[in-house]
Amino acid sequence: MQFHLNGFEPGDPEIFDRADRYPASGAQGSVPAEVDVLIVGCGPAGLTLAAQLSAFPDIRTCIVEQKPGRMQLGQADGIACRTMEMFHAFGFSERVAKEACWINETTFWKPDDARPETIVRSGRIQDVEDGLSEFPHVVLNQARVHDCYLDVMRRSAAKLEPHYGRRVVAVQPVARGSHDGARRVIVSLERLVAPHQGQSETVTARYVIGCDGAHSIVRRSIGRELSGDSANHAWGVMDVLAVTDFPDIRCKSLIQSANEGSLLIIPREGGYLVRLYAELTRLETGERVASRNITVDELIAKARRILNPYRLEVKEIAWWSVYEIGQRLTDKFDDVPQREIATRSPSVFIAGDACHTHSPKAGQGMNVSMQDAFNLGWKLAAVLRGQCAPALLHSYSAERRAIAGELIDFDREWAALIASTQGEGGVDPAKTQSYFIRHGRYTAGTATHYRPSILTGEPVHQHLANGFAVGKRFHSAPVIRLADAKPVHLGHVVQADGRFRIFAFAAAADPAASGSAIRRLCDFLADGPDSPVRKYTRHDEDVDAVIDVRAVFQQAHRELAIEDMPALLLPRKGRYGLLDYEKMFCADVRSGNDIFELRGIDREAGCMVVVRPDQYVAHVLPLDGYEQLASYFDGFMLPQSGQDTRRAAAAAVA
Amino acid sequence: MQFHLNGFEPGDPEIFDRADRYPASGAQGSVPAEVDVLIVGCGPAGLTLAAQLSAFPDIRTCIVEQKPGRMQLGQADGIACRTMEMFHAFGFSERVAKEACWINETTFWKPDDARPETIVRSGRIQDVEDGLSEFPHVVLNQARVHDCYLDVMRRSAAKLEPHYGRRVVAVQPVARGSHDGARRVIVSLERLVAPHQGQSETVTARYVIGCDGAHSIVRRSIGRELSGDSANHAWGVMDVLAVTDFPDIRCKSLIQSANEGSLLIIPREGGYLVRLYAELTRLETGERVASRNITVDELIAKARRILNPYRLEVKEIAWWSVYEIGQRLTDKFDDVPQREIATRSPSVFIAGDACHTHSPKAGQGMNVSMQDAFNLGWKLAAVLRGQCAPALLHSYSAERRAIAGELIDFDREWAALIASTQGEGGVDPAKTQSYFIRHGRYTAGTATHYRPSILTGEPVHQHLANGFAVGKRFHSAPVIRLADAKPVHLGHVVQADGRFRIFAFAAAADPAASGSAIRRLCDFLADGPDSPVRKYTRHDEDVDAVIDVRAVFQQAHRELAIEDMPALLLPRKGRYGLLDYEKMFCADVRSGNDIFELRGIDREAGCMVVVRPDQYVAHVLPLDGYEQLASYFDGFMLPQSGQDTRRAAAAAVA
Repeated sequence: MQFHLNGFEPGDPEIFDRADRYPASGAQGSVPAEVDVLIVGCGPAGLTLAAQLSAFPDIRTCIVEQKPGRMQLGQADGIACRTMEMFHAFGFSERVAKEACWINETTFWKPDDARPETIVRSGRIQDVEDGLSEFPHVVLNQARVHDCYLDVMRRSAAKLEPHYGRRVVAVQPVARGSHDGARRVIVSLERLVAPHQGQSETVTARYVIGCDGAHSIVRRSIGRELSGDSANHAWGVMDVLAVTDFPDIRCKSLIQSANEGSLLIIPREGGYLVRLYAELTRLETGERVASRNITVDELIAKARRILNPYRLEVKEIAWWSVYEIGQRLTDKFDDVPQREIATRSPSVFIAGDACHTHSPKAGQGMNVSMQDAFNLGWKLAAVLRGQCAPALLHSYSAERRAIAGELIDFDREWAALIASTQGEGGVDPAKTQSYFIRHGRYTAGTATHYRPSILTGEPVHQHLANGFAVGKRFHSAPVIRLADAKPVHLGHVVQADGRFRIFAFAAAADPAASGSAIRRLCDFLADGPDSPVRKYTRHDEDVDAVIDVRAVFQQAHRELAIEDMPALLLPRKGRYGLLDYEKMFCADVRSGNDIFELRGIDREAGCMVVVRPDQYVAHVLPLDGYEQLASYFDGFMLPQSGQDTRRAAAAAVA
Repeated sequence: MQFHLNGFEPGDPEIFDRADRYPASGAQGSVPAEVDVLIVGCGPAGLTLAAQLSAFPDIRTCIVEQKPGRMQLGQADGIACRTMEMFHAFGFSERVAKEACWINETTFWKPDDARPETIVRSGRIQDVEDGLSEFPHVVLNQARVHDCYLDVMRRSAAKLEPHYGRRVVAVQPVARGSHDGARRVIVSLERLVAPHQGQSETVTARYVIGCDGAHSIVRRSIGRELSGDSANHAWGVMDVLAVTDFPDIRCKSLIQSANEGSLLIIPREGGYLVRLYAELTRLETGERVASRNITVDELIAKARRILNPYRLEVKEIAWWSVYEIGQRLTDKFDDVPQREIATRSPSVFIAGDACHTHSPKAGQGMNVSMQDAFNLGWKLAAVLRGQCAPALLHSYSAERRAIAGELIDFDREWAALIASTQGEGGVDPAKTQSYFIRHGRYTAGTATHYRPSILTGEPVHQHLANGFAVGKRFHSAPVIRLADAKPVHLGHVVQADGRFRIFAFAAAADPAASGSAIRRLCDFLADGPDSPVRKYTRHDEDVDAVIDVRAVFQQAHRELAIEDMPALLLPRKGRYGLLDYEKMFCADVRSGNDIFELRGIDREAGCMVVVRPDQYVAHVLPLDGYEQLASYFDGFMLPQSGQDTRRAAAAAVA
């Protein structure tokens, strides 16, 4: 898609009239007095969380935002492959893939040896290594990502809309709520938009999540702060429509000049827009960049000097800014001090920039923030719906604090590297390029690796499926659906619906045979007294409502007869008891992309791969690892007795 | 996507609340008194045409429909590969691919030799041959296709909305309109919906297009009628939610029983719904099926008998019908008698079922109707915008009448074949399967082949690109965009924007060299006195506004330097003169899908492939075929003088 030719225009580029590009957003009236979850902040983290919770009509969610309405022009733009995988779970990866700019190659430029005041290309690499993800690395204005989430929320059962124009004044935990004994948090809000300006509101929530950015009030309310390096480099960033003869303007390009610093080029959506990050100056300790009064003309002049001998003629500036950001991190992402973990579960959480801030140039900020929220969302839902014990919520800070630590370390190295021209040693483009390649998986978001915990099994049986690393995201691969021969991606069955998945990769022997390992596993799951499917699913729910079992066979789809397969894999669902034909898949032997080969699955033994609702591999187990399977789920799930509703169970354990 | 589990629900399945699934559709108030185009009927043909015309803000279009509002449940459902290619041009192929049911395999069933009262599978074939199209064959309720078009119309510059509740009373051509001398048609309408029921309206239009179905009033107004076979078989059709142990219920399946007739199974979107066509009875000459008073229970009973020994338990019937349809066709698709073609151009057209009716089982009806409209749309726009002479409009009936004739022949054969159990000779499943395979390209919609005419060149140079047959649709193939290394499908640059394309496939030699064939072609197109790009583009338009030139190189993208290429391939556009980086592509040598190999392009010579706005190959020419190229466009296009506006030119020649 090409757009922005005659000037930057925010909103959906497929709508001709600018005035129609923003359907009304925002709830009317006051915030509800009582909710299950209050989310503070409509950034990428807050909206990911809101979209996730909106999938559950039985959860009362409210999301508030200081700004008076929806964002039209955001600052973040990088969308990693891993984030696209998550977008697929939310149902809008196709839309983003269509509208966004794809980053296919990254080029590196250095001073020309003969004429060091000019630059020459020193290298060119494929941006994402082959097979890393079925999705591309793309770039799209953050505001459009918001729009996608707002659509998910609006279309959901909850019809969730943000309450705009609200500032958090105070966050006050209450030991025990009134009627059900569960802990509550009282949040005081001030309305910021006329005619309600200055009015106060109060929300009582089971859980409060601060997605309110680097200056998070929620974070301060739980006594946590960001700490880390102070900023020492000033950078300028601008989104421009420009004419240039620099040949790589539609590639991600990292330019290190001899004496003018570095320039990072990020091509943007629509085919014409481009973002430039230019290194401006080293700051003194404690100095703020604002004090330098840098103008956009200086920024453009700087970019031109770095690009020499190429020309840059800026025609329109959609947005620009100068900033200085160090790497800062908070020590814990919830309100429970380390020493109290054993005795109480958290009620207040923070996510995204409220927990970690860093430079934008590695394109990680929005991605890591959304993954924070994706990690927390299903856990909150599972606890509120009575599926899991509240202690599960400790895993959020444990898992995501570690990831944020890695992010900060990465960003510190990366920022130093690309600013190296002003440090000692000068430019070393080979080093930069090599670093970039080595960290490709990190920047793609697929390096995240959760360590063993109640949610992540010990990788004792990792050898059964070396390509599904326990603790890393489930790496999808193509398969053929047995019932209709449709070529699909196995990972795409993992939607953002809060369900666990068990992928049973069958052994080589005939799966239909009476004693086959897959049949025995299905028998256990369907009827075994310790079956987690039985134990954690209510009688009035479909059999796959909590744990969704899918099987993958080694045989080509025409070699198998669907009617001979275990009944659990052709379950009857809904009020009519219709058959669900989408539980069985076969290796795509014809195309050569055999998932058993691609992911190193033991063909003799087969295996089970347990996948969390946020798409991470929770466990790899033998097909007959019934006990380990049961014990894994017993570690954090709550049995569902037929007579209890989940909500009652949830209240009882809170 | 899975939906309809607990009952059929019309509308967008991604919207939870049924009440929100239908945004208001339809224009308020009276129809405009004067328009350029009046479209009668909001079926697939009418909406395709309206969507196409809505792309041009300078064309005044009105579309009227008898029904009081938008369709919620349609009868057609088959969407051929070729139609998906067209949907891509309209921008909604992703949405349809996501929501629709993919037809991947077709299975054939016959009476069991040992127990002829039961059926056994006799064969199974891939539904679409490899490489036929980059899009799948899918099935989706017609109403959802309407929704997609309505969205395109609403989002367009024209913001076109149908005027519902209007019945055409009379269509009256007027020899010459009042102020500009152009021909006009006066259409009288009656409003059907309270509070305006019974009120009359009159629209004066330059062109009227009857997309008003088999009983078309527009067709009758121009004195044409459908003629052909009378129906002699009654069929029943039902969309059901059912439980069955028939194993191929999620495949397209053709079942020919020994004594109960045939059953055709079409799996439907959402994973649960299925359509069944059951052969009911042979009718007497002149008999109408309505007279038999067939009930849905009889239809279900029939399906059950054919499916024996498999069971079928129908849980919900979303829609059902019995019908008898022969193959009928009208002789010409416009209002100009054959003998007057040389002396006047048409003002009234018909499209879709108004021109041809046939049985629905081959899944062709909706597809052919939409292709009718896609053929006509750009022509009307080109004439109204002064780009082409009105004589061009004769080509619509000439081209589409021939296609409809082939459709009727195909349908007659196909209907006879699958009903053969009741004819002489009994069931011959091998013959059915073989017929199905032979006609796969026909049912995929890719067999359409326009014969040489002013729009379709003689295939004198076909050997330069054997895979781009002149007169057939441009068969897309993967390429790599030079500027940003993005893997794209070359055919996807052909959007429904009324523009012609010249794809210049470069010769093997270095394209950047000063005397290269591609450079010389670009020089001709940019500056040659006979260049069609110069001749047919207004001075105030972008260089690619009428004829969009793209180049494809044989070299891998890293071997070429964008800055060394002809300026025409990096054109400056829009008010800022920004560079358009999307005109140059390279063969995808790395993946092995080299477009030069795939489409049999002469590597030594290269070639030009001219593509019409409706995606058909208009001509294949040598790279230096300047004269032939100029002469092709001179055959139907009008030169644009700097001082004239198009509208004035259009009026002058009308």
